Amino acid sequence: MRIAIDAMGGDHAPDEIVRGALLYRASGGQAELILVGRAEELTAADGISVVAAREVVGMGEHPSSALRRRGDTSIGVATQLVKDGLADGVVSAGNTGATMAAALLVLGRIRGIDRPALCGMLPTTKRRPACLLDAGATMDASAQNILQYARMASRFMERVHGVERPSVGLLNVGEEPEKGGRLQLEAFALLSAASDVNFYGNVEGRDILRGITDIVVTDGFTGNTVAKAMEGTLDVLTEGIRRDIFGGALGKVAGIVALPGIRRFRAQMDYEPYVSAPLLGVAGVSVVTHGRAKARMLKLAIDVAERAIASDLIGVIGAGAAQESA
Amino acid sequence: MRIAIDAMGGDHAPDEIVRGALLYRASGGQAELILVGRAEELTAADGISVVAAREVVGMGEHPSSALRRRGDTSIGVATQLVKDGLADGVVSAGNTGATMAAALLVLGRIRGIDRPALCGMLPTTKRRPACLLDAGATMDASAQNILQYARMASRFMERVHGVERPSVGLLNVGEEPEKGGRLQLEAFALLSAASDVNFYGNVEGRDILRGITDIVVTDGFTGNTVAKAMEGTLDVLTEGIRRDIFGGALGKVAGIVALPGIRRFRAQMDYEPYVSAPLLGVAGVSVVTHGRAKARMLKLAIDVAERAIASDLIGVIGAGAAQESA
Repeated sequence: MRIAIDAMGGDHAPDEIVRGALLYRASGGQAELILVGRAEELTAADGISVVAAREVVGMGEHPSSALRRRGDTSIGVATQLVKDGLADGVVSAGNTGATMAAALLVLGRIRGIDRPALCGMLPTTKRRPACLLDAGATMDASAQNILQYARMASRFMERVHGVERPSVGLLNVGEEPEKGGRLQLEAFALLSAASDVNFYGNVEGRDILRGITDIVVTDGFTGNTVAKAMEGTLDVLTEGIRRDIFGGALGKVAGIVALPGIRRFRAQMDYEPYVSAPLLGVAGVSVVTHGRAKARMLKLAIDVAERAIASDLIGVIGAGAAQESA
Repeated sequence: MRIAIDAMGGDHAPDEIVRGALLYRASGGQAELILVGRAEELTAADGISVVAAREVVGMGEHPSSALRRRGDTSIGVATQLVKDGLADGVVSAGNTGATMAAALLVLGRIRGIDRPALCGMLPTTKRRPACLLDAGATMDASAQNILQYARMASRFMERVHGVERPSVGLLNVGEEPEKGGRLQLEAFALLSAASDVNFYGNVEGRDILRGITDIVVTDGFTGNTVAKAMEGTLDVLTEGIRRDIFGGALGKVAGIVALPGIRRFRAQMDYEPYVSAPLLGVAGVSVVTHGRAKARMLKLAIDVAERAIASDLIGVIGAGAAQESA
């Protein structure tokens, strides 16, 4: 198995990306890694080779700039390795829009899947991850798209996270089946009738972090705004706690006394082990991880790619889609 | 000025509601209050009279049950007092759906306003409130509806909260004007062209609590799920902090040391002074406050109703809508 790594993508590229690759191998990872990026900044090692790409898509850049520069970007070249059969998957901590654009352009969609989806992987109070999708890959989704998201995410949670019959909730304004707008009413009917989806029913925004279901499906507009609103709330609260509660002289003392508890709290909020997820619906394994990824998170993203490849996630999603459209 | 109070609505009705009414009067409030509910549980006082209503709409009940029971519910009777000119506004901590249903049924919509909207009033790190709307009054909103929300909320923030030229952000998946789906693109164009709205542009979910704009407009489905997701995040974090950080023996010590800081933190998060807001678009002042409202919050809700009535909020919204449709 060979996995291409976008060595130039992310806030801490290339140093932490390279360290992550080394960590993966040092931890017993068997896949051969291909670092793609500026050759002068990268060094090959045992089980790690280098492929040159001169350009980088910046974190703030518009994804279509990735397309205009054509093929010479680290994410473009890394994705092309998958297309050419020289790698079995690609991992990037870079600009998510560019990774998605490259995947769609170079790898294309899985036959039978109309629109791709992005998973937002969240920590829950049940100490297991929840997958919120679509987190923003597609605007103006249809109910049929949402049904496909539910199917793809079910296969992903089964294959990559080992969850048996993962439950699927439809994000809505209330629990009752008659809640929501036209899109939700139609999606509810389609999900209820799908035999390959363990449909729980409607869930509300406040249920997501409680892990009421393993998967929460919604359209990409709602998924993106909800995910960012939760992230913003977390940031504002964390800052407030740091400044107001543990900020002053007395607060610093309290912080030292509370240290074991703070560590316990942080451990529960630790989403690094599962924050990385493949783009669902594209015809190849393309794993997106957080732009803030350092070595450990990058190593864990490679693990996700490895499991997706080893379990033939793309083939399984494709077989399901083919059966459905047959 | 007379304000009808749904004395049976909310988790702490009727005791805390009655206490809130007394607090309002004791604090110098000039409006005469009319407590509406089970007469045997209520007592008149100086400036406070009682009007009987036998039925109550429970917090978990379906709003349409409020309609089926017709007029004999506390919220129904209280709203009818406004319609009949016996009160200038109504305040309720009860079932929001029932309050809205009663307002629409009894008072109707303001001429020129197509759909009503609910304000979600949020604390921001700028220590001033932000109004997120529609928080769920209307499903399947159009761009034209969103423009009307922006106008109504602008008048509300000016008149009731004294904000000059309140800025309006359109909730979207990115800041650039070309972001979003069909609804957002159309709403962006309408908002940009509106002379009576101080349009800032697109804002993201993470910007809401930072108070980037005074008002954030979106459709009722997104507004409801986003508001509940933020609430859920806040709840989960607060529980985690209580349990993990300040829970054990050591944590309790830390909690005592950190007490001034915890108080400071809580003060910033205190949204009671502005959490209450009138339903926008209905032809009368109908103020919704939190179901958890105790005396202080109820008193503050009456203040909001008083300001909305004194500043002729309904007349101002109606004049704007008439000008627009002329």
